[in-house]
Amino acid sequence: MLNPATPEFLDTLRDKLPEAAFRMAGPEHLEEPRGRYRGQGLLLAPGSTQEVATILKACHAARIGVVPHGGGTGLVGGQVMQGGVAPVILSLARMNAIREVYPSENVMVAEAGAILADVQQAARGAGRMFPLSLASEGSARIGGLLSTNAGGLNVLRYGNARAQCLGLEVVTAQGEVWHGLTRLYKDNTGYDLRDLMIGAEGTLGIITAAALRMAPVPAASGTALLQVASPRAALDLLALARDRVGDNVTAFELMHRQGPEFLIEAGLEARVPLDPLPEWMVLVELGLPEGLAPEESLAAIFEAAVERGISEDGVIASSQAQAEALWAVRETIPEANRRIGSISSHDISVPLSALPDFIAQGGPMLRALGDVRINCFGHLGDGNLHYNVFPPKGRDRGEYEDIRPRVKEIVHDLAHAFGGSVSAEHGIGRLKVGELERYGDPVKLAMMRAIKAALDPSGILNPGAVLRG
Amino acid sequence: MLNPATPEFLDTLRDKLPEAAFRMAGPEHLEEPRGRYRGQGLLLAPGSTQEVATILKACHAARIGVVPHGGGTGLVGGQVMQGGVAPVILSLARMNAIREVYPSENVMVAEAGAILADVQQAARGAGRMFPLSLASEGSARIGGLLSTNAGGLNVLRYGNARAQCLGLEVVTAQGEVWHGLTRLYKDNTGYDLRDLMIGAEGTLGIITAAALRMAPVPAASGTALLQVASPRAALDLLALARDRVGDNVTAFELMHRQGPEFLIEAGLEARVPLDPLPEWMVLVELGLPEGLAPEESLAAIFEAAVERGISEDGVIASSQAQAEALWAVRETIPEANRRIGSISSHDISVPLSALPDFIAQGGPMLRALGDVRINCFGHLGDGNLHYNVFPPKGRDRGEYEDIRPRVKEIVHDLAHAFGGSVSAEHGIGRLKVGELERYGDPVKLAMMRAIKAALDPSGILNPGAVLRG
Repeated sequence: MLNPATPEFLDTLRDKLPEAAFRMAGPEHLEEPRGRYRGQGLLLAPGSTQEVATILKACHAARIGVVPHGGGTGLVGGQVMQGGVAPVILSLARMNAIREVYPSENVMVAEAGAILADVQQAARGAGRMFPLSLASEGSARIGGLLSTNAGGLNVLRYGNARAQCLGLEVVTAQGEVWHGLTRLYKDNTGYDLRDLMIGAEGTLGIITAAALRMAPVPAASGTALLQVASPRAALDLLALARDRVGDNVTAFELMHRQGPEFLIEAGLEARVPLDPLPEWMVLVELGLPEGLAPEESLAAIFEAAVERGISEDGVIASSQAQAEALWAVRETIPEANRRIGSISSHDISVPLSALPDFIAQGGPMLRALGDVRINCFGHLGDGNLHYNVFPPKGRDRGEYEDIRPRVKEIVHDLAHAFGGSVSAEHGIGRLKVGELERYGDPVKLAMMRAIKAALDPSGILNPGAVLRG
Repeated sequence: MLNPATPEFLDTLRDKLPEAAFRMAGPEHLEEPRGRYRGQGLLLAPGSTQEVATILKACHAARIGVVPHGGGTGLVGGQVMQGGVAPVILSLARMNAIREVYPSENVMVAEAGAILADVQQAARGAGRMFPLSLASEGSARIGGLLSTNAGGLNVLRYGNARAQCLGLEVVTAQGEVWHGLTRLYKDNTGYDLRDLMIGAEGTLGIITAAALRMAPVPAASGTALLQVASPRAALDLLALARDRVGDNVTAFELMHRQGPEFLIEAGLEARVPLDPLPEWMVLVELGLPEGLAPEESLAAIFEAAVERGISEDGVIASSQAQAEALWAVRETIPEANRRIGSISSHDISVPLSALPDFIAQGGPMLRALGDVRINCFGHLGDGNLHYNVFPPKGRDRGEYEDIRPRVKEIVHDLAHAFGGSVSAEHGIGRLKVGELERYGDPVKLAMMRAIKAALDPSGILNPGAVLRG
């Protein structure tokens, strides 16, 4: 059993930590983007790895829970503990230094509190790019992005957060520091604890810094928005593009017409420059080596697609401004979704070849429950769909609370039946603990519990996240 | 304490396993490529995952060690247990099926005993490639390649074995089956046990099958062998190539003159087509999208390198046969090394920017011990060098046994001092257990031991490998 974090406990740390580490928890520490959870606890904001270790040692000795907090942008409640015994909220926000950039190695070392946009900026400053990119990049922090193995828009080409990380510095549940900040591309000396910590959502250790890979900037990039006849045609288009440019396809985002229609309904500005508005469309980005013109490659791909009946309409950006306007459509959809208000949102993945069947079967099953609208969009190349269910126009999601559990069950059961995942990129947090128990492999779950008990025997690290406490 | 595997123990399994599972251990199960260890134990060769589970359940109940055996090509003794209590040698060789190929997903499911060359062949048959490539690909098997997180020639572009794997089927120490054979590119549901099993060298579970990523075949490939002024110039050449073609650089292999000289000395056929033979040279391979001619890209890179004083001489392959002849030089060096006979071989990595200093400092330190020759070659783009130390011409390595420990210590101390690894791609096995204890982070080692105890409490899985029993 854990003990509550109290002002008296914090007082025992006053001679070990600087004044700056003691702050009041603000709304940013207690709220989360979807408004489903409200956190509690007492805040500590360490300024160094040693201070994190000091706090963990004390919490370990006193058996006090620790909820790590980065940018607070997680969508599954991993960063806020609503019920239970009050924890220490451990904000990494003050540890936001880019410690070092090594351009000739394509490596940077950043602290857990560094904001993604600042990491991207530091890479650009070194003539490189940091490929992780997602809607919340202006506030999400590296520690949280790694702890949740964040995905985003460039996973197809560059992989998820895991693939961007070479080494970690981690404070254990006992307050020891693992100095694993290697800048090595290859190192086979012992178990891969780096990848175990990545995606563990702060339940196995506290990431305090990371050695991150930078990528070369493609010599030229190009963007197109192409109508496709169906989700299956979208997959054919992906195969066609890869036949021509290999894995220089940087992004491949599917959108159903519902998304752009929501932009209008929600009073947002971004528009699809195709008339009529297609039922299905794909946003394609290529990043090409020197000597190739992306517009020409995209035009050749489009022509081949037209020949094969995959596509009939499309627009290829001829300027950076046009490319940004196309991206704005895709990137503004989540805001439109928020304004419309979903009955239930899902972040599922299925094997690529099962994706058309998933879409074909999901719609009728959900519409049998009522006159719902489905906004299906996402990272098609990764098999990852944001498959969100909304009330009809003019109705409020509050009226549909009763079908919400059944909607979720239908979508998750269907994804699971196709060998898919009920959390492709958002993680488990506290929201999906039950889903993990329901759909997870029991042998895997038993191993997870054994590892949790081995590394955090008192269960102080992010209690109740990922695994039930 | 473990109990020995005995004929009587095997007899208890005769009604649970088919006759084919009972075989005599042959030389291929008891010897390893470097001849430093000789194995022992009784062989079992299951034909299915269920049979592996049956064996593990019985070994777990009887506390009998299990040494998994794939292609037997490991270089650090992970596959042979020389001393201690006789184990079951668990050969996965009969489980060699390619279970399924999913071309539209770029995914294949292969059993642990599938030979790498057969996996490559199956990918080619589907119009794709399986990028893992290394000298032993004709006999190394997928289970062992994943268990050791094998590297090889294409890591720069495609990553190591870890990066080729989407899902695993694993039998635990208790004989349970984790059905983790997902074909998903994104799945954030719980701890990353896949990457924990990969590289654990059979000490945490037995990999029985894997879902593997295939890659699109580049539209065109090109190969060049370029002289470079120094290791630092080689790094400059890599940066220059990446500025032009991004990460379409598939391979970037450094060779010192010593390697090609060994080819002559060892009576091997491959030759460097440059006269005079350069002191340093780089084998570059590009894999490019449609619309680019690799010879032209390589020529442009070479011209830019000449302008900047990075290179003075080189040859660009103008046919597949010429490309293969250039690759033969690189790929025959390990055989030349075997024939010459090294005093000590090393598989180190250092941060890329430290590589020239490592090479500059290592030579004089080693030559202070005696008139040794150094064959320094390897995967420069990964910071991974095979840095092998030989006796002078006409002398036998047996005469240098006394300096062998000191040679190893100098090389490993120096790599470690630069923040490097003493095992970049070969793993720990039994050969480097002491090195891991010496150089490994103590907090990481403590976490490794806790995880080992949690998942394999009786210590039956590959006893003495990675961690001292």
